[in-house]
Amino acid sequence: MLVRISEIQIEPNRLDEYKAILKEEAEASVRLEPGVISIFPMYERDNPTEVRILEIYASRGAYQSHLGTPHFQKYKSTTLPMVKSLRLVDMEALDPATMTTIFGKMQRGR
Amino acid sequence: MLVRISEIQIEPNRLDEYKAILKEEAEASVRLEPGVISIFPMYERDNPTEVRILEIYASRGAYQSHLGTPHFQKYKSTTLPMVKSLRLVDMEALDPATMTTIFGKMQRGR
Repeated sequence: MLVRISEIQIEPNRLDEYKAILKEEAEASVRLEPGVISIFPMYERDNPTEVRILEIYASRGAYQSHLGTPHFQKYKSTTLPMVKSLRLVDMEALDPATMTTIFGKMQRGR
Repeated sequence: MLVRISEIQIEPNRLDEYKAILKEEAEASVRLEPGVISIFPMYERDNPTEVRILEIYASRGAYQSHLGTPHFQKYKSTTLPMVKSLRLVDMEALDPATMTTIFGKMQRGR
């Protein structure tokens, strides 16, 4: 399991464009790639150019394979000039055992 | 829906203790409170005193109610001296429509 928070700062005048492309890429990744467990994009409510993405991959191999997909390649090349700064922060889940329970609740539509 | 990333810096010599208390609190919150959709605690792999918690509540009311629970009160009072800094960052999900799909994949045990 690979858990990451990507911290991305977007050029203010490209924000809407960036968000549309990221939304499409996240949706495609989760739908098409079995090894992409979650790509959950958010932005700070009081500072919308500060984007955070919670990314969960089944393995490092799944992540490497993700990097080679057409939808990721398209995202990367089109958004490159929109990104002011990028920090990829690898995380550890505090309690991997309860991850499915936690996210399962979302699924049950609460 | 209330989505938040809590950014918490822990006193290094209290880290193990803090993590045990947080783990218990997160588990109890998700199990006991219908309005707590997710409390997902992580820490930076290369900097384990940097804790991040993705918190998703059904509503602001559910969050307010969470603050009054015995398990949160216990967490808050016992960990107060272990916390060096705390930043509660309210977030917006980029694509609320796909949230259930994204987290549902976790549930299916991928």
